[in-house]
Amino acid sequence: MLLEYCISLADVQKAQLVIKDLIHQTPVLTDSSLNILANRKLFFKCELFQKTGSFKVRGALNAVLTLCEKAKMEASNIRALVTHSSGNHGQALAFAAHLKGIPTCIVVPRTAPACKKAAIRQYHARLVECEPTDQQCRAETTAKLAAEMEALTIHSSDTPEVIAGQGTIGMELLQQVPELDAVVVPVGGGGMLAGIAIAIKALRPNVKIYGAEPQNADDCYQSKQRGQLTPNPSPPDTIADGAKLSIGPKTWPIIQDLVDDVFTVTEDEIKQATCLVWERMKLVIEPTAGLGMAVVLSERFQSLPENLKNVAVILCGGNVDLGSLSWLKNLSESSKQ
Amino acid sequence: MLLEYCISLADVQKAQLVIKDLIHQTPVLTDSSLNILANRKLFFKCELFQKTGSFKVRGALNAVLTLCEKAKMEASNIRALVTHSSGNHGQALAFAAHLKGIPTCIVVPRTAPACKKAAIRQYHARLVECEPTDQQCRAETTAKLAAEMEALTIHSSDTPEVIAGQGTIGMELLQQVPELDAVVVPVGGGGMLAGIAIAIKALRPNVKIYGAEPQNADDCYQSKQRGQLTPNPSPPDTIADGAKLSIGPKTWPIIQDLVDDVFTVTEDEIKQATCLVWERMKLVIEPTAGLGMAVVLSERFQSLPENLKNVAVILCGGNVDLGSLSWLKNLSESSKQ
Repeated sequence: MLLEYCISLADVQKAQLVIKDLIHQTPVLTDSSLNILANRKLFFKCELFQKTGSFKVRGALNAVLTLCEKAKMEASNIRALVTHSSGNHGQALAFAAHLKGIPTCIVVPRTAPACKKAAIRQYHARLVECEPTDQQCRAETTAKLAAEMEALTIHSSDTPEVIAGQGTIGMELLQQVPELDAVVVPVGGGGMLAGIAIAIKALRPNVKIYGAEPQNADDCYQSKQRGQLTPNPSPPDTIADGAKLSIGPKTWPIIQDLVDDVFTVTEDEIKQATCLVWERMKLVIEPTAGLGMAVVLSERFQSLPENLKNVAVILCGGNVDLGSLSWLKNLSESSKQ
Repeated sequence: MLLEYCISLADVQKAQLVIKDLIHQTPVLTDSSLNILANRKLFFKCELFQKTGSFKVRGALNAVLTLCEKAKMEASNIRALVTHSSGNHGQALAFAAHLKGIPTCIVVPRTAPACKKAAIRQYHARLVECEPTDQQCRAETTAKLAAEMEALTIHSSDTPEVIAGQGTIGMELLQQVPELDAVVVPVGGGGMLAGIAIAIKALRPNVKIYGAEPQNADDCYQSKQRGQLTPNPSPPDTIADGAKLSIGPKTWPIIQDLVDDVFTVTEDEIKQATCLVWERMKLVIEPTAGLGMAVVLSERFQSLPENLKNVAVILCGGNVDLGSLSWLKNLSESSKQ
């Protein structure tokens, strides 16, 4: 069965060795008031504290280091790297490539958070903006740049080395929370969900793996419902900018077989949950990282059996544009009860 | 010499035993990018993760539990507690009193952050609002309520049991950061500064103790300059609402003798530093907790000798009104470099 997938547990284990000295083993935090609200014991995996401010650096580092090694190339023999990204993968790849001295070009939707764009520039990568409304244009721009620069393209989620890198979150979780019953993982392109599923289902098959998706970008939910890969029909409109991408041909087979269920939440639920984590846990998470909290508070999740007690929630990133927090204004009052 | 002071190391040690099972030993976090900016190794003591969202619960719990014990009273023999507070002490006292089932009344300036008022109500305390412009009115309202309710008044900083409770931060720091060279402590009424000074100067006299104050509420700085207690002449206008109170007759003798220096920072420096901690460390701190970071980045602090290497910064609280963050808007861009 595992042979169908683009990676196996061994790839995740190897990734762990490759990246371990370059990343943080992020802490797992708990909050008693949120346990009461969720009626379960929640374990928050704090990837917002990860280098570059999100989990994406795990996959990017594993991709850059593994590709350099695989081709028995010196770093200087890879001319350049290119990718398109809503921001966090761009930052992560820029950081990883800069470590190896490889020139990098990141294609970013014009509307990506300013802080993410600023960080990409800070890691010395070239930034090319494209219209957010046209995914095809984005892919074409990336392909054109790759040809021009003789660059390798590293997709933010549908790259085996990236998926294996994200899977290291699952390895750490099993060690940090041995009593784990379930993990709730935000889904964009599905690299983190697929990587965690590969690691955890191989080692602890009884642990449930759940995806967390915005209703407005529910391609993973739709794919699971229909039993076939069903990308978002048009560019989604959601505050969870990291969840806009659709799952792809490499992540889908893993998600189809190994993910137990996918839960969707509304924009209001995402905002409320994000605000709740800010207020109660004092953690600056980005809305995409609020997806898991929103799911565990949702009616459908609440109806899951009570013996699903110890639930990990991945706080996947903390790269928030502090200049654009107007949506918080109306929420902070309502979430105070 | 210690006899002049209202508390000694023994009181702090006793406080530690009294409150230890009811509070969190908060973590100490580091951030390499902030170390580079400050040109020192910074150790952030995360009291924003403390119960009730600030360090104040240490002093409040020690006061409530010690007073109950001292009078050999059952809790029911203390009829009520009363205090005035810009918010965090109010929350903390409400929490502590609720644990012992003692009715409590908190006098709060009308302009205190809504989240702090909401939390006070959540701990079942009665909330009485007063005009923020008139400190005398606030004291009189408190005294009147105390008489009416036959209540004990527990001042937020000028109470020996409160000072001893806040001093437990110093005990934890010495254990968590054995290489400590200096501590930077935000100052309002000076309870935390005095408590930490008592603990650390008794055990490690070479560790420097510094106060951090808004220029707009610089009574502690003025008092040290003049060698005599010099309260703020009028109600200060600062975003660091926890620093508005002046130091008092009990905290001043300790601060006069044991605090090495006091540094002041502008409103812009406070906002920039607060924003920096949000963006880089992903921690929701309140502006009062940004005081220490602002100080270590200030020109005068930067001119201190280089061998003052390992500096603790107290992130004293995280109770921010997420509905009133408009000041962040203009800052987030500038702090991105």
